[in-house]
Amino acid sequence: MAGETSITVVGNLTGDPELRFLTNGTAMAKFTVASTPRTLDRESGQWKDGEPLFLNCTAWRDLAENVAGSLTRGTRVVVHGRLRLSRWETPEGEKRQQHALDVDEIGPSLRFAQAKVTRTTRAKGGDGFTPNDAPDDVWNTAVPADAATASAGF
Amino acid sequence: MAGETSITVVGNLTGDPELRFLTNGTAMAKFTVASTPRTLDRESGQWKDGEPLFLNCTAWRDLAENVAGSLTRGTRVVVHGRLRLSRWETPEGEKRQQHALDVDEIGPSLRFAQAKVTRTTRAKGGDGFTPNDAPDDVWNTAVPADAATASAGF
Amino acid sequence: MAGETSITVVGNLTGDPELRFLTNGTAMAKFTVASTPRTLDRESGQWKDGEPLFLNCTAWRDLAENVAGSLTRGTRVVVHGRLRLSRWETPEGEKRQQHALDVDEIGPSLRFAQAKVTRTTRAKGGDGFTPNDAPDDVWNTAVPADAATASAGF
Amino acid sequence: MAGETSITVVGNLTGDPELRFLTNGTAMAKFTVASTPRTLDRESGQWKDGEPLFLNCTAWRDLAENVAGSLTRGTRVVVHGRLRLSRWETPEGEKRQQHALDVDEIGPSLRFAQAKVTRTTRAKGGDGFTPNDAPDDVWNTAVPADAATASAGF
Repeated sequence: MAGETSITVVGNLTGDPELRFLTNGTAMAKFTVASTPRTLDRESGQWKDGEPLFLNCTAWRDLAENVAGSLTRGTRVVVHGRLRLSRWETPEGEKRQQHALDVDEIGPSLRFAQAKVTRTTRAKGGDGFTPNDAPDDVWNTAVPADAATASAGF
Repeated sequence: MAGETSITVVGNLTGDPELRFLTNGTAMAKFTVASTPRTLDRESGQWKDGEPLFLNCTAWRDLAENVAGSLTRGTRVVVHGRLRLSRWETPEGEKRQQHALDVDEIGPSLRFAQAKVTRTTRAKGGDGFTPNDAPDDVWNTAVPADAATASAGF
Repeated sequence: MAGETSITVVGNLTGDPELRFLTNGTAMAKFTVASTPRTLDRESGQWKDGEPLFLNCTAWRDLAENVAGSLTRGTRVVVHGRLRLSRWETPEGEKRQQHALDVDEIGPSLRFAQAKVTRTTRAKGGDGFTPNDAPDDVWNTAVPADAATASAGF
Repeated sequence: MAGETSITVVGNLTGDPELRFLTNGTAMAKFTVASTPRTLDRESGQWKDGEPLFLNCTAWRDLAENVAGSLTRGTRVVVHGRLRLSRWETPEGEKRQQHALDVDEIGPSLRFAQAKVTRTTRAKGGDGFTPNDAPDDVWNTAVPADAATASAGF
């Protein structure tokens, strides 16, 4: 695929993921993410919650099983996927449409939590990275500690 | 901040995160992510790895401690943050610059792994979501099962 | 605002933008963008169009007037904005919701077109860039021509 | 390609684009974009400019020619592309690396400008959209005017 509309959403699961299997055995997990922006109230100097964005998400295959085995209602996640539009007709003949997300990658956010990670599947295409390929000094030579600290605004 | 350049990177840690503490006690975690795209070779019909993109990342405060407590060399992650440019001068007076990522959110990818998530900190601004606020039927009423399945291309 | 869900959509306007003015004089432009992904058919080696993603967009103030003065039905655009969810009730009491885009930046794509650009408003916050601030040699010293060409895969 | 790192940058050209032609006739345009974030100073309630992010960009083929024919030093643009890392060795044997952007789509921002758009090339793959395919009522039926207005916070 090319020319798809990618999007990253950070938010909380509104319920436990629902895991189903298609008749051909393919796993599918469905869940909804609620992402709540914050507004800075200039007068009070306080942040307050804005309108939440709800987005229905679907994950497939191994990813679906890992989602169902790792995430529960309330878990904060980082989701990366492709926005798509479902269109259908109601039994009364009304046309409806709904935007949803086909999930490519998802992980539990480490902002307010820690995670114990257990590998379930062997790396395949797209995960062919071998740590030994990386230059040892990527970070060290790239930016001296002072530069990094200075630019961080302390 | 407004007008920053956000980016999502999916890749593998090239080493264990390095956790440091500034003199004021602020935690800072540094690590490098290697993201490897794949190319479809039209003749063979096979995917092959492209040139990896290495990006130095910095996380701060609770997030930094959770990164150090959860991720290790090789972990596949989903990182969302802001791209910035560090500029400095070498002792020889040469100007150097390096793009890097200030991490806002990161999680271990569930593509090839499961994760056991443990909450470490209480929700604060930006995580004010209470699952009970969500309509129970967000997913159910929004898209009938057939519509979702149909649009997924099975 | 913080923690909003940003998205970039590339597609074509399905109609001319509709420009309206609120009672307080604020300009608002509405339009819909259709983004069509492509799938590579492995057998034929041909690309074919996938399901289009339609997204309703709203621009405000000067941006709205510039959109209405520059874009027409069919124009291909690059849109950057924040995804939001509108919720309302029908006169019959049914709950409805619709995802839409609040536009922050938009421009006509130069992929299949040229554009003659005319400045309409003076730079304000967020456009405080003065070309003279930029080092003359940003590009030249950064990457030797060979390196850039080599990595581009020719 | 799959698994590439996409990014959208909004900023100003630091100079006129440089158009070159490879020996095989392929057009290539190079330019640098400076993106300047803003910080809200809570005490004064004023926005002030942050550190600019400079990013070298390369466009190819028709897009390169359209960039060279449309954009000049100072033009504000919306750029969508893939982040990549160039690596090379200096004549002295030092290793250097630089992040840069391979441009997929770019357009002049309509935030402070209007644009007169002239089609240069016939639509090909990826622009197969015909306005007539779009339902006439995408916007109208989707969100009643009140809902849209209400959610916009007026």
